Amino acid sequence: MTEQLMVKQERAARTRDTLIRSAAEVFDRDGISGASLTAISSRAGVSNGALHFHFASKAALVDVVEEEALTRLLAVTNGALSLGTSRVQLLVDVTHALAEKLRGDVVLRVGFALSGETSRPRRMDLRERWRRWVEETLKQAESAGELRRGAGVQDVVTAVVAATVGFEVLGVRDPAWLSASTVARLWRLLLPTLVPAAHLAGIEAGGPRRP
Amino acid sequence: MTEQLMVKQERAARTRDTLIRSAAEVFDRDGISGASLTAISSRAGVSNGALHFHFASKAALVDVVEEEALTRLLAVTNGALSLGTSRVQLLVDVTHALAEKLRGDVVLRVGFALSGETSRPRRMDLRERWRRWVEETLKQAESAGELRRGAGVQDVVTAVVAATVGFEVLGVRDPAWLSASTVARLWRLLLPTLVPAAHLAGIEAGGPRRP
Repeated sequence: MTEQLMVKQERAARTRDTLIRSAAEVFDRDGISGASLTAISSRAGVSNGALHFHFASKAALVDVVEEEALTRLLAVTNGALSLGTSRVQLLVDVTHALAEKLRGDVVLRVGFALSGETSRPRRMDLRERWRRWVEETLKQAESAGELRRGAGVQDVVTAVVAATVGFEVLGVRDPAWLSASTVARLWRLLLPTLVPAAHLAGIEAGGPRRP
Repeated sequence: MTEQLMVKQERAARTRDTLIRSAAEVFDRDGISGASLTAISSRAGVSNGALHFHFASKAALVDVVEEEALTRLLAVTNGALSLGTSRVQLLVDVTHALAEKLRGDVVLRVGFALSGETSRPRRMDLRERWRRWVEETLKQAESAGELRRGAGVQDVVTAVVAATVGFEVLGVRDPAWLSASTVARLWRLLLPTLVPAAHLAGIEAGGPRRP
């Protein structure tokens, strides 16, 4: 590959990334149906022609934003696999990481909001993907003997998924709902019902320590 | 007032109600920016002229749907004042009533969804009104000595408001999130941390008994 071609491809990839972020910003501000392609291309600082070179339509851009958001969600849930940690601590840490990402990452935020659009394909539904990950992680915690006897796993899945989706939605208007202290508050409340009293001191409701 | 005038006024009031419900249905389906006045009037079975007689613009219709939704939220929170009941039981019962209403009442649902629009006036924000009612009710429960010593009222407000808003949002795609069994699951989980063990048997997590 010639150097010139590589430069060209790199530039195209950068333009594509910029267009995806700009699209998410415009969707976030104007809603999907209110968003115009002209607003997106001008926000990205490219011509309408350049936008159309990368994306055939607004629908194609929505699909790509949703795919990119799903990739980022998977990076959050898979990124914290740190062996040796308890599954309950993993769940606490990942809810903190997700809230932090939702505060700062407009692509992820729009991807979650698209879950509410009944016309979107179910396989991409980020809130449903999140629900499945929470359920899976709590079942692993149960198998590993981390949970209090009588802790209803499905009750906890319901509460954690509903509350985190609530944080996501309320955070649009007031980012305090996505703060570390709000997430810690939820866990301080739930942990005593979830893990045996003897293990409680070993779980950090405030999430991962910053280096 | 002549009988003829009364008939005319009644008919106008009925048309107005039909237009509000039709507007909510179209907003629910197409989003605010995607909704057209023609779709609303044709759904209501009236002419564009009749719509404009009642509402000057789409913005006016959005305002009226939001006001009507707020009235309905207040009917839910104020409707269950039944003296003598514990405040905690009142809170449980009202979350059940709200979930049931959100399942069936498109005006209330759209009103809640408008809370996520940062451009809407804050004083109408239904999710914020709901948060304030939950906080107020839990403070009353605390004053009445109904809460367990050490129960963090703000932790419970955070969890209950976030989870119910989560139910509202997740229920758009899957109404099971607004079912009585889902709401009961949340309360089964929270009640043991909220009320003293001795009082637990007196609280019905499943909400009000149907006659």
